[in-house]
Amino acid sequence: MNLKIAVLPGDGIGPEVILQAKKALYAIGEVYNHEFVFEEALMGAIAIDKTGNPLPEQTLNLCLNTDAVLFGAIGDPKYDNNPSAKVRPEQGLLKLRKELGLFANIRPIKPYKALIDASPLKREIIDGADFTIFRELTGGAYFGKKTLNEEGTHASDLCEYSEEEITRIAHLAFKSAQNRRKKLTMVDKANVLETSRLWRKVVKDVSVNYPDVALDFLFVDNAAMQLILNPKQFDVILTENLFGDILSDEASVITGSIGLLASASLGEKNALFEPIHGSYPQAKGKNIANPIASILSAAMLLEHFGLFEEASVIYKGVEKAIEYEVVTVDLKADSKFGTNEVGEFVSNFI
Amino acid sequence: MNLKIAVLPGDGIGPEVILQAKKALYAIGEVYNHEFVFEEALMGAIAIDKTGNPLPEQTLNLCLNTDAVLFGAIGDPKYDNNPSAKVRPEQGLLKLRKELGLFANIRPIKPYKALIDASPLKREIIDGADFTIFRELTGGAYFGKKTLNEEGTHASDLCEYSEEEITRIAHLAFKSAQNRRKKLTMVDKANVLETSRLWRKVVKDVSVNYPDVALDFLFVDNAAMQLILNPKQFDVILTENLFGDILSDEASVITGSIGLLASASLGEKNALFEPIHGSYPQAKGKNIANPIASILSAAMLLEHFGLFEEASVIYKGVEKAIEYEVVTVDLKADSKFGTNEVGEFVSNFI
Ligand SMILES: CC(C)[C@H](C(=O)O)[C@@H](O)C(=O)O
Ligand SMILES: CC(C)[C@H](C(=O)O)[C@@H](O)C(=O)O
Repeated sequence: MNLKIAVLPGDGIGPEVILQAKKALYAIGEVYNHEFVFEEALMGAIAIDKTGNPLPEQTLNLCLNTDAVLFGAIGDPKYDNNPSAKVRPEQGLLKLRKELGLFANIRPIKPYKALIDASPLKREIIDGADFTIFRELTGGAYFGKKTLNEEGTHASDLCEYSEEEITRIAHLAFKSAQNRRKKLTMVDKANVLETSRLWRKVVKDVSVNYPDVALDFLFVDNAAMQLILNPKQFDVILTENLFGDILSDEASVITGSIGLLASASLGEKNALFEPIHGSYPQAKGKNIANPIASILSAAMLLEHFGLFEEASVIYKGVEKAIEYEVVTVDLKADSKFGTNEVGEFVSNFI
Repeated sequence: MNLKIAVLPGDGIGPEVILQAKKALYAIGEVYNHEFVFEEALMGAIAIDKTGNPLPEQTLNLCLNTDAVLFGAIGDPKYDNNPSAKVRPEQGLLKLRKELGLFANIRPIKPYKALIDASPLKREIIDGADFTIFRELTGGAYFGKKTLNEEGTHASDLCEYSEEEITRIAHLAFKSAQNRRKKLTMVDKANVLETSRLWRKVVKDVSVNYPDVALDFLFVDNAAMQLILNPKQFDVILTENLFGDILSDEASVITGSIGLLASASLGEKNALFEPIHGSYPQAKGKNIANPIASILSAAMLLEHFGLFEEASVIYKGVEKAIEYEVVTVDLKADSKFGTNEVGEFVSNFI
């Protein structure tokens, strides 16, 4: 197979971890005779520094015209505490999601047997947990109108959803549930928010097409609690953009480290793969960042193109690295291995 | 002391648990020679059933003219899955919060030594955790304009904040931090939301008045993770309405049961005390609901009026109940004690 892949390393630890994902893909290409052509481009704080624009035209055009995008991380503290910055790194990622129409962000959560004891949660709580979060990615408060009055004393964010936006991701989530344990949990705040009530109505309507899937509803406050009390109850979780952002970071504790979690963002025509962790600027350049989330993002990319055997070799390589404790310090405090060594281990395994 | 207390038992398990809180207050009144006069009123689904209005005029007037409000729980499943219901129980509570100007909801989180092993989190993670969440309670998406178009295909919720709304709760939170471990963590999503950027700016401005308090910032997705990875890092958490709703329910897992957590909602003139759990309709009338959160709400009420010794007797009674395992099934699966027995134990202790 020939694949053209746009690579956006982004900020902080992004470049280091993405390098390891590329290594894994190179190895797969050689062994399985695929041609992966990578083209790098700027996005995020680094793009602002070099071009003034968090998503340069060139980057966007590249992404629109490739088979897939592999993305690292975004964000820089120098923007976070500057409320009056007009241009911010995150705008690049949000614009990219919107322009590529990446409406569904899929985040699988499943602890590794060898890491069961790395979680802050008790073994019996998480052993056997296995669920996927479907987070809507191009709507909600992320993209609604924002205002700040002239005096800088009054601000607003508008959260909006349409039936269409809800329907398309609901179908994906129900289909996924059909291939899993046939349970879908819709998370919302329908006792307070109008948008949540629309979600509930539309998801119920869509559910009639999937009579084999059991549908239930949880308020987001309760869901945030249930994820920790009893994560095994979940199969597929479907939710809106901001709730999905919060709940998927929270759910990472089940696996012991957010450095293990990959995600796929899908649209009608485009697909982007990224670790769910952030740019972790304190770790930048220290060879301590966990590259596994990025390497697993590469595996999700392969699956997306039907390369299941190839993806499974990566999954096995990651499992072996974890089993042999070739892991970064987030997983083993006294580990002598770094970003590079973990990446090498996995690509050598292939 | 003479106190006139409005009692709103509300829905589901509300009446059962509030009864136990009243018992504790009666006992305190007798022993310490205070006169607590209770007046009951309707709010929530029960008020809709009886009057058509989730917050009848009479209830509101009573609450406006008492020293404090003791509230149980709200919500009924018959409204949750009916997106077109025009009148909903929660509107009663939200209107009451707004009309009484209860802008600060304060939720202390601290595990009981005797219950350390009841949490899904490992002992070493939670032992020593002790923090308080300051949740803004009368702004944000809860109270902004809501729309649903005529076809029912497009909905919106507006999240709004003003400098003034942020300033007043920020002062309360900083003052609390001064009396604690002098650390305040502001939780927001300033990399995406305009309202969050306003929060960050205003809280920074307020912080200059409290140079002895260390201020830091966390994005809400990261905060949802940090609460589980390392809850001991927190002292006072300050956040907006919806984030506070989610994070405080999540944080309840640290104590082993949401049935243990009380909260105070404060305004300029009024104060309301309530358990943070919901109406738990499945448990209604079964004598299995945990009354401790309500009993502790009564203790917070006493503290609010400077009755610290009285409050501490209640805290001790609750500790003893937990120590002797006179607890409901949420804390001990095979417990033979129910709502009533736990309430009796505490009021007898007084
Ligand atoms: C960087 C930020 C804008 C982003 C988000 O909130 O979507 C990140 O937290 C994520 O989850 O991908
Ligand atoms: C019942 C509901 C409206 C309420 C809220 O979301 O504020 C509850 O969850 C709470 O936390 O007090």
